[in-house]
Amino acid sequence: MNQQLQNLQQWVQDQGLDVAYISNFTNINYFTNFFQDPEERVTGLFVFPDHEPFLFTPALSIQAVKKAGWDYPVFGYLDHEDPFALIADHIRAINPNPLKWGIEKLDLAVQKFEAITRQFPQASFPADASLKIQELQLIKTDAELEIMKVAGQQADAAFAAGFAALQAGRSEQAVVAEIEYAMMKQGVMHMSFDTIVQAGMDAADPHGGPEATKVQPGELVLFDLGTNNHGYMSDATRTVAFGGSVSPKVREIFDVCLEAQLTAQAAVRPGLRASDLDKIARDVIEKAGYGEYFNHRLGHGIGMSTHEFPSIMASNDMELVEGMCFSIEPGIYIPGVAGVRIEDCVHVTATGCEPFTHTPKEFQIIQ
Amino acid sequence: MNQQLQNLQQWVQDQGLDVAYISNFTNINYFTNFFQDPEERVTGLFVFPDHEPFLFTPALSIQAVKKAGWDYPVFGYLDHEDPFALIADHIRAINPNPLKWGIEKLDLAVQKFEAITRQFPQASFPADASLKIQELQLIKTDAELEIMKVAGQQADAAFAAGFAALQAGRSEQAVVAEIEYAMMKQGVMHMSFDTIVQAGMDAADPHGGPEATKVQPGELVLFDLGTNNHGYMSDATRTVAFGGSVSPKVREIFDVCLEAQLTAQAAVRPGLRASDLDKIARDVIEKAGYGEYFNHRLGHGIGMSTHEFPSIMASNDMELVEGMCFSIEPGIYIPGVAGVRIEDCVHVTATGCEPFTHTPKEFQIIQ
Repeated sequence: MNQQLQNLQQWVQDQGLDVAYISNFTNINYFTNFFQDPEERVTGLFVFPDHEPFLFTPALSIQAVKKAGWDYPVFGYLDHEDPFALIADHIRAINPNPLKWGIEKLDLAVQKFEAITRQFPQASFPADASLKIQELQLIKTDAELEIMKVAGQQADAAFAAGFAALQAGRSEQAVVAEIEYAMMKQGVMHMSFDTIVQAGMDAADPHGGPEATKVQPGELVLFDLGTNNHGYMSDATRTVAFGGSVSPKVREIFDVCLEAQLTAQAAVRPGLRASDLDKIARDVIEKAGYGEYFNHRLGHGIGMSTHEFPSIMASNDMELVEGMCFSIEPGIYIPGVAGVRIEDCVHVTATGCEPFTHTPKEFQIIQ
Repeated sequence: MNQQLQNLQQWVQDQGLDVAYISNFTNINYFTNFFQDPEERVTGLFVFPDHEPFLFTPALSIQAVKKAGWDYPVFGYLDHEDPFALIADHIRAINPNPLKWGIEKLDLAVQKFEAITRQFPQASFPADASLKIQELQLIKTDAELEIMKVAGQQADAAFAAGFAALQAGRSEQAVVAEIEYAMMKQGVMHMSFDTIVQAGMDAADPHGGPEATKVQPGELVLFDLGTNNHGYMSDATRTVAFGGSVSPKVREIFDVCLEAQLTAQAAVRPGLRASDLDKIARDVIEKAGYGEYFNHRLGHGIGMSTHEFPSIMASNDMELVEGMCFSIEPGIYIPGVAGVRIEDCVHVTATGCEPFTHTPKEFQIIQ
């Protein structure tokens, strides 16, 4: 049993639970090394206080479970079978009357919850496994950090491909095509999210995607991208000028955003509150008069998901701890003027932090 | 208000509900034309019996909502705010005490459900909007079919790119890179799922992905792919021989699978039961002695999701109706021998069905 799964079983024991049902497929991967999005089908990891766990998956996934190295029982079901009736049978073979359940309240849909309560009408659900898993995933092990460093190197390679692909008149979408093609040719089959390339005014939409808009000289181009390396994500943003200098106003916005990013990244240390880190970046932008245009939190945790804990925002007073991983990504979005975001993901060290990505952040003009 | 949203509001009235909360982002797209995966953030569409609906999204998505043409109110929240407290305020401004709720039980996570019940302790949840939405989406309009036909043409183009990319010694992953690059250069930015290319024995894993395995002459290569055209999906599978003929045993498996696919596709007509259609294909494979190697349902519905209703399987006695769209995808997977799957998605017509993809299915050798 790997350390992650041992930690989970320990929690099941400590909470006095009869069974924990892990339903989120990313978290199932974290505990089992088996990754598959079941879509509308049902996959579950069932963990007991004093019995070996089992996986339950669609029948057609059993081969993939074994290939992933899962040493415990795995049970399948066919599409016309009732998965929760079968799950109940497998659980009852271990414990005829499991009363206290742990479930992932952030993931488990009401319909599945109701299916469980139909099978086990006396069940109660005192423990939220989501919160425990967030806690487990909050501090990365050295082994996890090594995998994430490689994901960071891949993101740096993706920036290089993206900068090289900039050509006057080439669309944002075509630049994305070049980036993802370059990565796949290197065997990186999954970006951690849809690659974002936004030229000029398009970047003023902080969550827009690449459009048919053509890149023009004298504009900023924003790249927000990352890769999935063995289930662990990278995520970084660079904003560069293309083909010549930009207007003084646009350059000022860039400089303010960069200062906010660098100031925050230099301030990270164990014991600093997440909310204070957010404020350090926000103060720079507010002092420059652009506070209203920075309308999202400073950062998000990263690991097997691009968005996990800790959230770096005003309402989170959690203290930073060595091994935490999160993004530092101030942005300034002024419709009709410009959009700038600069982002590294970092891991907290004993004395500060180290970024996973090393592509220069300073203002640069790509010719 | 578009027809879809009118249908939903009619259902809210018919069920005597005070409010319906649509939480699934694909379904929000279906009703509003606004598409965004909110990940851990909260997006919701709230529909009332006798008041205009509203959207609730992260603040940074409001611009995208307006760009999508949403004419009704949209309310945002910042990352440090409690979204359900704000949602409750907006609902109470319309109805101070909404008692009867419709929710999407297939989508809504227990944690969000509990957040709603904390805001509205007297609420009851008598209606499952998931089931109503499945019913609404089951029959496609002519306008939807036109969009899906284009997605099918895109899938045919992707097959052509994939067949052209086959080279001895090129890896499955490199073939996928060529397919997705070709599609992105045509402006098709989203495949409907991760493209699958499996050579030789790899295809015996019905849900495996592309590996570093190199394509070898005299083997079958399986392509399972689709595209996302304005939110509507295509999905098709072709299995072809590469570089020369295959062994008689492998050819026999191919021929059985093809016969099952063609027989089933020819049998589709309004009034036929989904379970009977599954049996028509399964009988062909069982008669040939390969029944145990066809370990999944014959097909799944398709539309804005690659897997929706109707499910074409033994336990579903639903009668087919004109306008339904689903896959017909028998497969035979024999570990160590071969894997074959052949798939078209079709829409039911007055007298039979029409496929969305037209790439030949007959045995062919790609040189």
